[in-house]
Amino acid sequence: MITKSILLVEDNQSDIELTRRAYERAKLPNPLVIVKDGQEALDYLLCEGVHANRSTTELPALVLLDIKLPKKDGIDTLRCIREHPVTKRLLVVMLTSSIEEKDIADSYDSGANSYIRKPVDFNEFAEMLNAIGLYWLVMNEMPPQFKPRTPEL
Amino acid sequence: MITKSILLVEDNQSDIELTRRAYERAKLPNPLVIVKDGQEALDYLLCEGVHANRSTTELPALVLLDIKLPKKDGIDTLRCIREHPVTKRLLVVMLTSSIEEKDIADSYDSGANSYIRKPVDFNEFAEMLNAIGLYWLVMNEMPPQFKPRTPEL
Repeated sequence: MITKSILLVEDNQSDIELTRRAYERAKLPNPLVIVKDGQEALDYLLCEGVHANRSTTELPALVLLDIKLPKKDGIDTLRCIREHPVTKRLLVVMLTSSIEEKDIADSYDSGANSYIRKPVDFNEFAEMLNAIGLYWLVMNEMPPQFKPRTPEL
Repeated sequence: MITKSILLVEDNQSDIELTRRAYERAKLPNPLVIVKDGQEALDYLLCEGVHANRSTTELPALVLLDIKLPKKDGIDTLRCIREHPVTKRLLVVMLTSSIEEKDIADSYDSGANSYIRKPVDFNEFAEMLNAIGLYWLVMNEMPPQFKPRTPEL
């Protein structure tokens, strides 16, 4: 069984580096895949565009989605994820520095599973990524389409 | 500021006692409110029926919702929560012993934030309740309608 990835959607290069380092510190077994805008996230998930060679059976276990993104922002991307039958049950956690009430409300109204404000402190961020991983990848039951098929006896 | 409650919707008396004891062990500051079927959960949330004297401004911070419930099952209750403007953004974690694929799929399709399988072991259950509380009440940003208003200066 292949360990499913976590998909990070984040455009800011210094935030990407920070997240990558914090993710290494968090020591989660899942590979971290990074895409830089909402359209690329959808292309990755639906295996289109530059990601046409991927297989849709390899959906990530979790999407960490920023809100302010080029091409297609996080809220629009989330709506597209929830509208498409292949991706509609994906676990999506908004991970952003915004605590604007409108962003939080729009996220929940568009079907976000959770909304996490990125802490500024690095150690705190690493601990938070670890806690996010433990909650969603260990405690929480995955939506059905992500479960590997039980081999027939 | 009043500490918001956690609403547990659970009909089985021995499961209620177990959860109450595990919740005490988890040492969360939020009061645990228990209702025994889906209809009473909606009455509690919408301040109707025997809960008509409550105020809708006192919504719980989190709903822990079983699936197999009398009068109105957990999935139907969740759908009603998501359809009503007062309750549509409530954080709802399904907490159940079922791991039937249909229950998990129906929960996510009906707007559950998360789906947790109740562990059989008591200590593990207490740790899980603690982790659920930390994740949803400390790390996660509450949907806007639950935030206390900032006093005007």
